[in-house]
Amino acid sequence: MINRKIILLILGVLLLIESFFLFLSAMVSLLYESTDFRAFIISSLIALTTGAVTFYFNKNAVRDFGKREGFLIVSLVWVVFSLFGCLPFVLSGEIPSFTNAFFETMSGFTTTGATIVSDIEGLPHGILFWRSITQWLGGMGIIVLSLAILPFLGIGGMQLFSAEVPGLSPDKLHPKIKETAKRLWGLYTLFTIIEIILLYIGGMSLFDAVNHSFTTMSTGGYSTKQASIAAFSPFIHYVIIAFMFIAGTNFTLGYFALLGKFDKVWKNEEFRYYLGFTTVFALIITAGLVITNHTENIEEAFRIALFQVVSILTTTGYATSDYLLWAPFLTFLIFALMFFGGSAGSTSGGVKIVRIVLIIKNSYYEFKRLMHPKAVLPVRLNRKIIAEKIVLNILAFMVIYFIVFIFGVAAMSMLGLDFETAMGSVIASLSNVGPGIGRVGPVYDYAFLPDTGKWILSFLMLLGRLELFTVLAIFTPVFWRK
Amino acid sequence: MINRKIILLILGVLLLIESFFLFLSAMVSLLYESTDFRAFIISSLIALTTGAVTFYFNKNAVRDFGKREGFLIVSLVWVVFSLFGCLPFVLSGEIPSFTNAFFETMSGFTTTGATIVSDIEGLPHGILFWRSITQWLGGMGIIVLSLAILPFLGIGGMQLFSAEVPGLSPDKLHPKIKETAKRLWGLYTLFTIIEIILLYIGGMSLFDAVNHSFTTMSTGGYSTKQASIAAFSPFIHYVIIAFMFIAGTNFTLGYFALLGKFDKVWKNEEFRYYLGFTTVFALIITAGLVITNHTENIEEAFRIALFQVVSILTTTGYATSDYLLWAPFLTFLIFALMFFGGSAGSTSGGVKIVRIVLIIKNSYYEFKRLMHPKAVLPVRLNRKIIAEKIVLNILAFMVIYFIVFIFGVAAMSMLGLDFETAMGSVIASLSNVGPGIGRVGPVYDYAFLPDTGKWILSFLMLLGRLELFTVLAIFTPVFWRK
Repeated sequence: MINRKIILLILGVLLLIESFFLFLSAMVSLLYESTDFRAFIISSLIALTTGAVTFYFNKNAVRDFGKREGFLIVSLVWVVFSLFGCLPFVLSGEIPSFTNAFFETMSGFTTTGATIVSDIEGLPHGILFWRSITQWLGGMGIIVLSLAILPFLGIGGMQLFSAEVPGLSPDKLHPKIKETAKRLWGLYTLFTIIEIILLYIGGMSLFDAVNHSFTTMSTGGYSTKQASIAAFSPFIHYVIIAFMFIAGTNFTLGYFALLGKFDKVWKNEEFRYYLGFTTVFALIITAGLVITNHTENIEEAFRIALFQVVSILTTTGYATSDYLLWAPFLTFLIFALMFFGGSAGSTSGGVKIVRIVLIIKNSYYEFKRLMHPKAVLPVRLNRKIIAEKIVLNILAFMVIYFIVFIFGVAAMSMLGLDFETAMGSVIASLSNVGPGIGRVGPVYDYAFLPDTGKWILSFLMLLGRLELFTVLAIFTPVFWRK
Repeated sequence: MINRKIILLILGVLLLIESFFLFLSAMVSLLYESTDFRAFIISSLIALTTGAVTFYFNKNAVRDFGKREGFLIVSLVWVVFSLFGCLPFVLSGEIPSFTNAFFETMSGFTTTGATIVSDIEGLPHGILFWRSITQWLGGMGIIVLSLAILPFLGIGGMQLFSAEVPGLSPDKLHPKIKETAKRLWGLYTLFTIIEIILLYIGGMSLFDAVNHSFTTMSTGGYSTKQASIAAFSPFIHYVIIAFMFIAGTNFTLGYFALLGKFDKVWKNEEFRYYLGFTTVFALIITAGLVITNHTENIEEAFRIALFQVVSILTTTGYATSDYLLWAPFLTFLIFALMFFGGSAGSTSGGVKIVRIVLIIKNSYYEFKRLMHPKAVLPVRLNRKIIAEKIVLNILAFMVIYFIVFIFGVAAMSMLGLDFETAMGSVIASLSNVGPGIGRVGPVYDYAFLPDTGKWILSFLMLLGRLELFTVLAIFTPVFWRK
């Protein structure tokens, strides 16, 4: 029933894109005369050959597909990209274990940023660049990129788009899906370039500036330094805060801002809550850090607090301070923020601000309904009524998110992990944050986990990146029924 | 606007009921020649006088009230009962701190069973009996009791009933609310008596048998022994397992069973899931205990596992084993069960099986809706369609439960508690379980917590017992608006 050929055809073509970026990393390796050049060339050729062959044998596929093919393509492309994307790690010998290499790559593409590397500075330039590239590609989305640059997806494009970017309705930027994808990637690239310039001005090397811009705008969080952003100056902290915040904003609003339509940005309810949450949490934590004498300098406390709040809220996962050493209450706030995520239609993970806002509104409306059972009391967002069906879907999403979290923690504790590490690793993966709590805190890495644990977390990263439904649907009987 | 006089009138009358049970405890104290006789007589007189005076000054109240008065009466009666109910603890000098005494009493009435007493066997008989009585009254409900024995509540009775027993629609047992309340309390008393006889046969003293039956049937969990049920024989373990399970079943089904209509019990979906969850969790934990060499005897492993699963699932909180010493995964299962609770219309706490079942069903239906967006796919329970409004309400309930949990944990960690203890104490209070995880595990007590923490947990117990809405509504502006 399912059009297998079209799925293979598209996956084949997408592999060619990956092959190109592997080749680009080889060039970077060459430029810096690093040891991993051969690994990248071979990886690129493997991806190129596999892609071309798959394409060739399926080129007569019927150019038409439905929802199910869409879900499969989008889910599979992330797995395929991770499988081929981990080749350079293995071939260069930098991450010899296949499990570790796959974990690192999936963590990259899903912009999670959880790493198994314990000596970042010891990695060659090509590998460092490839880690950042995986995040940059995954941030705005592999499918969105392919929609922007490939002419042939046409009719099924919309299907694919909404499976990869569930939060953003594609008609907002342009009625044509191809145009929307182009504008999104254009904007994304523009912001990345501006950040590179600012970081370079701030004193970073060009290499570090490029890498950090890639992993900021994608809210990925991979760094070229073991100490993460703590290795850089306060000016750079503020620049990165600003761009993490932008990356966590709906890109439609970024587009409006660029056109000078700031009123549209300001009137957007999700944006106002996003700004509100950021401010409130940052101020509470600043106060907390000062009160508990974590630091005496108020500017420093504010900078640390704001940086960590924005980093976790946008699910970037950079660190300038080890929040596990803060007072328990402050650590708890950071942990709670891991469930939030940034705005819908941004590159961030988590459940997204708009869902949080709608469920809080709906909860309050339940009390109104309790007092006035006969009144019609619809939930509104941006002054528009939200259909009950959508509210139901969002509530179901929250519940499924929680169920996945619970099962994840159960599985991880079955592997013998303590409670905090189990919870920390699961939410950090599911929300694509990166660092968690317990033994996967910001100054640790994921290398010590048993292999099974790494596969579970890789799966959770994928679930989180595609916002549950696209991937989970494939595992339901109703998906495979006629 | 609010009819204050009727609220005071009813609270006054209810205090007379409490006065009677305080007097009963004085009689028990007299019988066992224990030291707390005077404390109970004085407490009883204070409750009697206050109740009578309040009644007298409001006896001309308009005999009519609406939803808001209903919510206030039901919420306030639990607070008032705890305020007067803690008098014997303070006056006898057994629990001199008012905060501790209030916590112990609220924990009793809400059938939580969290205790601040570290030497249970050192308490006099009157005090022990009173602890059990508070749970027994709170189990089936103070309001339900008053509806059964007081003639005058009449018209507002239904209002009060559904505010105290949100899960059970009162028309199931009898169209008249008074008759329903009578049958519920009759059945409750009958089961309690049968359990007393069985425990007595099993070798308990009459005093212990009465106390444990009171705290089993109410799913309360207070024991007369420091070691809880571990102090008794395997036969007694099985008897208590059976009665905890009955207490966690919808009493409507208990009524059907008594009438011999077992098919009605078996056909009830919530009951089947309740039985299913119990069996599955008990078997997994049995296997886990055997595999991890916690015990070599399979019968013992099964008994420990079943006992703990039923105890936590029904939110009773008795212990025969310290589950914090089990493998992390098994401890996690127990922790997860704390959110479940028994059946709606039972004496248990938690979110209740029926809600869990409905949200899982609805989650699955979301995938069906995803694949077939145009099909009408209502959620069903017992083969009947559940209105979207009700599904929405249940989802909102779950979300609010989770939000309350998060805020509770934040507040407790603000007091400096570690993460596990904060989570354990909050869920153990909110779900009315009693023992939690961390430093409030089954072999510890709550005495070490700061006073503020005890007040927060007392409030959470009340929230949990009245299933959130009744109490929380009072704190919303819409409640006080005309």
